[in-house]
Amino acid sequence: MGKILRVLSWRNMLVLSLAINFSLVLKILKGDRERGDSWDRTAYVSIWPVVSTTASGSSSLSSASCNYSKIEEDDDRIINLKFGDPTVYETYWQEMGEVTTMVIPGWQSLSYFSDENNLCWFLEPELGKEIVRVHKVVGNAVTQDRYIVVGTGSTQLYQAALYALSPHDESGPINVVSTAPYYSSYPLITDYLKSGLYRWGGDAKTYKEDGPYIELVTSPNNPDGFLRESVVNSSKGILIHDLAYYWPQYTPITSAADHDVMLFTASKSTGHAGMRIGWALVKDRETARKMIEYIELNTIGVSKDSQLRVAKVLKVVSDSCGNETAKSFFDHSYDAMYERWKLLKQVAKDTKRFSVPDFASQRCNFFGRVFEPQPAFAWFKCGEEIVDCEKFLREEKKILTKSGKHFGDELSYVRISMLDRDTNFNIFLHRISSSSNSTL
Amino acid sequence: MGKILRVLSWRNMLVLSLAINFSLVLKILKGDRERGDSWDRTAYVSIWPVVSTTASGSSSLSSASCNYSKIEEDDDRIINLKFGDPTVYETYWQEMGEVTTMVIPGWQSLSYFSDENNLCWFLEPELGKEIVRVHKVVGNAVTQDRYIVVGTGSTQLYQAALYALSPHDESGPINVVSTAPYYSSYPLITDYLKSGLYRWGGDAKTYKEDGPYIELVTSPNNPDGFLRESVVNSSKGILIHDLAYYWPQYTPITSAADHDVMLFTASKSTGHAGMRIGWALVKDRETARKMIEYIELNTIGVSKDSQLRVAKVLKVVSDSCGNETAKSFFDHSYDAMYERWKLLKQVAKDTKRFSVPDFASQRCNFFGRVFEPQPAFAWFKCGEEIVDCEKFLREEKKILTKSGKHFGDELSYVRISMLDRDTNFNIFLHRISSSSNSTL
Repeated sequence: MGKILRVLSWRNMLVLSLAINFSLVLKILKGDRERGDSWDRTAYVSIWPVVSTTASGSSSLSSASCNYSKIEEDDDRIINLKFGDPTVYETYWQEMGEVTTMVIPGWQSLSYFSDENNLCWFLEPELGKEIVRVHKVVGNAVTQDRYIVVGTGSTQLYQAALYALSPHDESGPINVVSTAPYYSSYPLITDYLKSGLYRWGGDAKTYKEDGPYIELVTSPNNPDGFLRESVVNSSKGILIHDLAYYWPQYTPITSAADHDVMLFTASKSTGHAGMRIGWALVKDRETARKMIEYIELNTIGVSKDSQLRVAKVLKVVSDSCGNETAKSFFDHSYDAMYERWKLLKQVAKDTKRFSVPDFASQRCNFFGRVFEPQPAFAWFKCGEEIVDCEKFLREEKKILTKSGKHFGDELSYVRISMLDRDTNFNIFLHRISSSSNSTL
Repeated sequence: MGKILRVLSWRNMLVLSLAINFSLVLKILKGDRERGDSWDRTAYVSIWPVVSTTASGSSSLSSASCNYSKIEEDDDRIINLKFGDPTVYETYWQEMGEVTTMVIPGWQSLSYFSDENNLCWFLEPELGKEIVRVHKVVGNAVTQDRYIVVGTGSTQLYQAALYALSPHDESGPINVVSTAPYYSSYPLITDYLKSGLYRWGGDAKTYKEDGPYIELVTSPNNPDGFLRESVVNSSKGILIHDLAYYWPQYTPITSAADHDVMLFTASKSTGHAGMRIGWALVKDRETARKMIEYIELNTIGVSKDSQLRVAKVLKVVSDSCGNETAKSFFDHSYDAMYERWKLLKQVAKDTKRFSVPDFASQRCNFFGRVFEPQPAFAWFKCGEEIVDCEKFLREEKKILTKSGKHFGDELSYVRISMLDRDTNFNIFLHRISSSSNSTL
């Protein structure tokens, strides 16, 4: 070693060091070029176009809709709160950044089949796994020994359940009933094909016919938000439970639902309505098999792309619930709904020109605290001086809502979405708190 | 400068050089860490899971299925060619690499709405644009002054068309007919809900009833691959054209189809069946409006994720047609179908134990040359000694096919998918070319 050092003069060592410098500089330059290449490669990767309407400027779901009284942006435009478009959730998912980003290679989704060993052969196994997990985390439904049937939204699953539960003999269409106010689409969806298997039978409260029937139980209910049980007192009833809103941002989770056929949807749980994914938890194998048969005949399965996206989103939701250092998805969305309902109730109290339902508080097993339901829709009743509430809001306030008549109820009621973007919700509050009958 | 150099002895310069070395090493290490970070970030990005069944080992679509006679992998397993699962296209899309990869942020697909200004409010504008473009590039359908209705596969669009074209008065269900052999799902899809709007009326060739009816024209036809026109000679017929297979890999494109209602699907054009996307080109506004109404009631729109993926895939297909230095998607898929049909016809000729249809050659405007149809299904007729062809192939050859009886035809026919992976197609050829009645 000493000999080597003696051979290498300071000058030699300087040359060696300079050579090392040179090679290190080369390495850095090469590294930069390689990174440049990978950027070029990402240029081939299509970026999903941004939704044309922008989300609210509010930086957090929980700070939503605080400033309606100081609102300056009410520009006389029509505010559409007729549908339950769940855009309130956009801000949360934007804030979550890349954690739910999905990369899909072009050679995916070629086969019709997702899992040939599953009775529901078009269910992506990853989605099945995350559905079970999220229900376990939230505690809102029993999944053990249940068949999972995926659908193109819960709307398709409702029809699959009707197909599965109706008698296919010559006994004629079975009546389908639900307690008014009921979801306005139920009568339309039940009757649009004039099916010989089933037909809309009206309000369950007044249903008196003999023989088998199907009763739809929506709990919490759309439009009014109340928890429900079946009302027809007969042993011949077959029940379908629509539990789209049985999530802790809307209502206390008092127990794990345990019914024969339970319907859920991504649209109202995580807010991803445009994915069109719902799922059913079904106790009886033959019912599940016939629901699957319906979906085969109706659409030959369900978009794989959206199934895998929902699986990813549900995973993030479940993961967020176990994270003690940050607010969970349900904490965020609970806070947003809480804030909106607080403001709406305050306006109702201040103006005395309309009312919203009074809910009883219950203990929520998920949050471990007592609170009142804060539904996805407000079942809004105009004061006595206004006969047609929908017309009044449309003509005088330029707010579009859905009239009570579509829900089997009175014209004095309207259903108002509580799930729109902050901007629209703030304008809505501003307009209804105004004492004038004019829009502004 | 000379002064500076004098001050810096060789020893000083070495120290300086070593310091530079040290800083360069630090820079490289920091760079690596930064790249490590971005890798960590991509770890949050879900990578679409690989389809569990592997694609063929063949390196190119065009070299498909050459080696069936030397096949060594026939392991006595059941080969399912009953469905038209288009997995033959997997290899092409894998070879295309990242060009059709899609990145979808988690905050996409929240709203139900895609384009509130379009009659079809759930159609992604990008998909609409690419549908028009691909039909223009291929020349297989007129899109000018047509409404585009997107559906969850063309199966849903078929039902939407029935809903739109049936009278909604008290005249009772309209008959729906098609010439046998017809697509086996048509009677099932038409009748499964016992609709009061429409009902299956059977073989169009023997249809004699008075009054309005709907005639389904599938061209090229599923199962037999022939080009078709309507056959019921009446002015009261309403036509639906199912053009799922009117693409140049299957049949010469002789003209741009120009009918009232034309149905297409990604499943059979680009091979993306698991996306569940179809589209209809509709001449009449009211028909389009009612089809849209059906899809609203049936599934409240169509998966946005899959729509945008199909838009991307169609764009790549159209782009590939304008690329003069490389083979287009249709060149590739034409070659694959050509190779398979050549081999199948050769086996038919050699064994004389079955037959497939003879097709007339026609000039294809897209390719600019004359060729015979090479359909997605083989309409396979067993020799006279075999009464039940499906049973024979299932029991003796362990090949699952669909019996002619489901298509309104004889038991001596079966429909065989020509769209499966190379491995399965090779085993199929190997088994049917075997002179023994046993499987191997």
